[in-house]
Amino acid sequence: MKFERSDLLGLEDLAREDIEAILQTADTFVEISERPIKKVPVLRGLTVVNLFFEPSTRTRTSFELAEKRLSADMVNIAASTSATVKGETLKDTARNLEAMSIDMLVVRHSASGAAHFLAGALACPVVNAGDGAHEHPTQGLLDLYTVKQKVGRFDGLRVGIVGDILHSRVARSNIWGFSKLGAKVTVCGPATLIPPGVETMGVAVSHDIDDLIPELDILMILRIQTERLNQCFFPSLREYAELFGIDSRRMARAKKDVIVMHPGPLNRGVEITPEVADGPNSVILDQVKYGVAVRMAVLYLLSGGETTRETAD
Amino acid sequence: MKFERSDLLGLEDLAREDIEAILQTADTFVEISERPIKKVPVLRGLTVVNLFFEPSTRTRTSFELAEKRLSADMVNIAASTSATVKGETLKDTARNLEAMSIDMLVVRHSASGAAHFLAGALACPVVNAGDGAHEHPTQGLLDLYTVKQKVGRFDGLRVGIVGDILHSRVARSNIWGFSKLGAKVTVCGPATLIPPGVETMGVAVSHDIDDLIPELDILMILRIQTERLNQCFFPSLREYAELFGIDSRRMARAKKDVIVMHPGPLNRGVEITPEVADGPNSVILDQVKYGVAVRMAVLYLLSGGETTRETAD
Amino acid sequence: MKFERSDLLGLEDLAREDIEAILQTADTFVEISERPIKKVPVLRGLTVVNLFFEPSTRTRTSFELAEKRLSADMVNIAASTSATVKGETLKDTARNLEAMSIDMLVVRHSASGAAHFLAGALACPVVNAGDGAHEHPTQGLLDLYTVKQKVGRFDGLRVGIVGDILHSRVARSNIWGFSKLGAKVTVCGPATLIPPGVETMGVAVSHDIDDLIPELDILMILRIQTERLNQCFFPSLREYAELFGIDSRRMARAKKDVIVMHPGPLNRGVEITPEVADGPNSVILDQVKYGVAVRMAVLYLLSGGETTRETAD
Repeated sequence: MKFERSDLLGLEDLAREDIEAILQTADTFVEISERPIKKVPVLRGLTVVNLFFEPSTRTRTSFELAEKRLSADMVNIAASTSATVKGETLKDTARNLEAMSIDMLVVRHSASGAAHFLAGALACPVVNAGDGAHEHPTQGLLDLYTVKQKVGRFDGLRVGIVGDILHSRVARSNIWGFSKLGAKVTVCGPATLIPPGVETMGVAVSHDIDDLIPELDILMILRIQTERLNQCFFPSLREYAELFGIDSRRMARAKKDVIVMHPGPLNRGVEITPEVADGPNSVILDQVKYGVAVRMAVLYLLSGGETTRETAD
Repeated sequence: MKFERSDLLGLEDLAREDIEAILQTADTFVEISERPIKKVPVLRGLTVVNLFFEPSTRTRTSFELAEKRLSADMVNIAASTSATVKGETLKDTARNLEAMSIDMLVVRHSASGAAHFLAGALACPVVNAGDGAHEHPTQGLLDLYTVKQKVGRFDGLRVGIVGDILHSRVARSNIWGFSKLGAKVTVCGPATLIPPGVETMGVAVSHDIDDLIPELDILMILRIQTERLNQCFFPSLREYAELFGIDSRRMARAKKDVIVMHPGPLNRGVEITPEVADGPNSVILDQVKYGVAVRMAVLYLLSGGETTRETAD
Repeated sequence: MKFERSDLLGLEDLAREDIEAILQTADTFVEISERPIKKVPVLRGLTVVNLFFEPSTRTRTSFELAEKRLSADMVNIAASTSATVKGETLKDTARNLEAMSIDMLVVRHSASGAAHFLAGALACPVVNAGDGAHEHPTQGLLDLYTVKQKVGRFDGLRVGIVGDILHSRVARSNIWGFSKLGAKVTVCGPATLIPPGVETMGVAVSHDIDDLIPELDILMILRIQTERLNQCFFPSLREYAELFGIDSRRMARAKKDVIVMHPGPLNRGVEITPEVADGPNSVILDQVKYGVAVRMAVLYLLSGGETTRETAD
């Protein structure tokens, strides 16, 4: 059946069925990236623009590969070379792209809500590739897909998200996603980096990782952005590593089959030690791998592709 | 029949017949950008290089889409990463590209005459994507095409170009283009921003937009480049907006069916107010739309494609 | 037969037979770049990433054209936008790309050994596009190919490499390449710019270009990097040009059919005068031309293509 959403702005917006449809559709695209010829003509002759107002290697490259493997015509626009430096409004930039008959817009912006704003202004599908501290839905979906592949279920899973919850769009998308699929999420970090009232999102809060870690099925470690140091959210990287960094000693208290996730890029030795990042519980590179497939699924569905979801539900 | 030019350097160089051939050829390519599969194999296996020594989103993206929809292999080179920062001459940069068997060069440069210089040095076709304050011929052509679509004729049309004529390559290309097709052009702006002797290009000069506006069929509003403020061409943005900015009050004195054009990006509230930019007379987004088609037509014709112009003339 | 190398890291590593196989394979690809349709489906559906930690126009563009003419899906990643600025290790950056199922990595890095390091960490083929002052093997191969086309043999050829040998990866790759094929290499430059012990690479050393020039069949002139001036390797560009710059006066003492090479970009008037650069002995633009074909051959062979080398040897 047809996917009924016209944009992908966040996981808060999506119904559980929508998320499941995307995850099931991604199966097909995982297989395509494993073929010798990694290319299907699904978006042939369609124009997809990646409009990135924040620098990005990993997300931009993942979208770019997804688009190329779907045979789309793809254009990258980076903020630094954009007309916005000449004072053009975001809406005008987007309407200009639409006037050029683009078929889909992938946008990253430092302002929360930028993707929603553009989705309201444009007729073509908009994919949020990260908006401020709000959401990063394709990251959330690829994290969910990785858990689906590695664990096979969500109901009753205990998920801990550790680190700078306050500034993390990855945390927000994962909180919505895991909760909707039936997992129970606890966020953990220094009090300065936990948003006040986060419990209203349905999560528990912990300030003690040693206390939390034995209960977890999924341990998602967020990147510490070292530029936050100047903003007095925590005293030093060393203290952060001491109190919240995941190392072998802490892993010894975890369940044997706990899944360790990290959205990257890694600060090795700060929020995660190399033994953990490269250890047997880590699925960090699987996340990257499945990211391309999940983005292919999203672009395919938003372009009008059929879902592979069972119609029984 | 074959298009007889080997480069597109400016509209001053082109005969009326050349301009008409391009505009007629563009009709085909407007239709292609409206198809679900926006791609034709016209330039398949040909290499087009976009060599931009000045930053650009809109023009570069428009060329890039035109090239991709024609199935060209396209390479973007931005000045900041270019060998020119290592002291290479412009001619050496271009001859190196030619040695790599490129089939067409699209070039933007801050120096007037850069495109002419390269056309003389290279065997492959050169398209001027803007050279200093000299010409921006594809912008001129897309403006002409927009008027052809919206008004259907040029003879006797009254065209007003308002703003910083002195520094505007858009103004120069439009003056040549509209004049050759039989329209009558008046330029309007502060005395400091009107080039001395501009009348020799066959245009009238006005310093009073309120006086001029009722006579116009086409009102082309140029972007005020705020960086000029430091150079004492006008006292303040506020004064400029007061004396030459187009708002609803001024539009009330215009012909009911006047066409409002702007090459973008817009400074909303300076040279144009939002009511005018988004109003019923505005064709600003049509200009952007037709830009892709006109550039497809130019690339097609310079690559040796047949014109669709009637052979009767 | 199959090419047996899985990476191209340097010419020091390659056997004479490997070099010859690449040069013979390049013949096919020279022909392809001379066709109207410069495209073959050799790498169709494969993903090649150009990961450049140093700015480059000429090498990056040459690889990009090679990849596009082989129909690869190509992604450019420039260091300035890379996750490395966020503190990610080189190995993590590369493993992330590999997780996205890339098929080949082309890498330029300011650290000698970076390409070797990545080749050890990744399963996919790695092509060194320049690592510090170590090697630039595709430049060496294109220089060899140019000599093969222009002279037709290597045995007994006298090759002089003039300039900043100390910092030049181009010099190192050419020393290995020409020596393996039977030519005799002399390096020439100010004592401060000749690496101590360079004779162990099998080359002779000269500090007097006037003395050396009459003996040479191949005169390879290196670019003087003006940023070295601040580092006191030589007193002034003017003195360098006086002592080592190649001008018509010096060329008068050379063999009539000496081949003049330069890897570009040229500092006209410093290490080479315009009369020499554009003169009848110069093959500088041939080097650029053959660069695309040689890179196509390398990518083809590393992707598992058959060599066109005779099996008689």
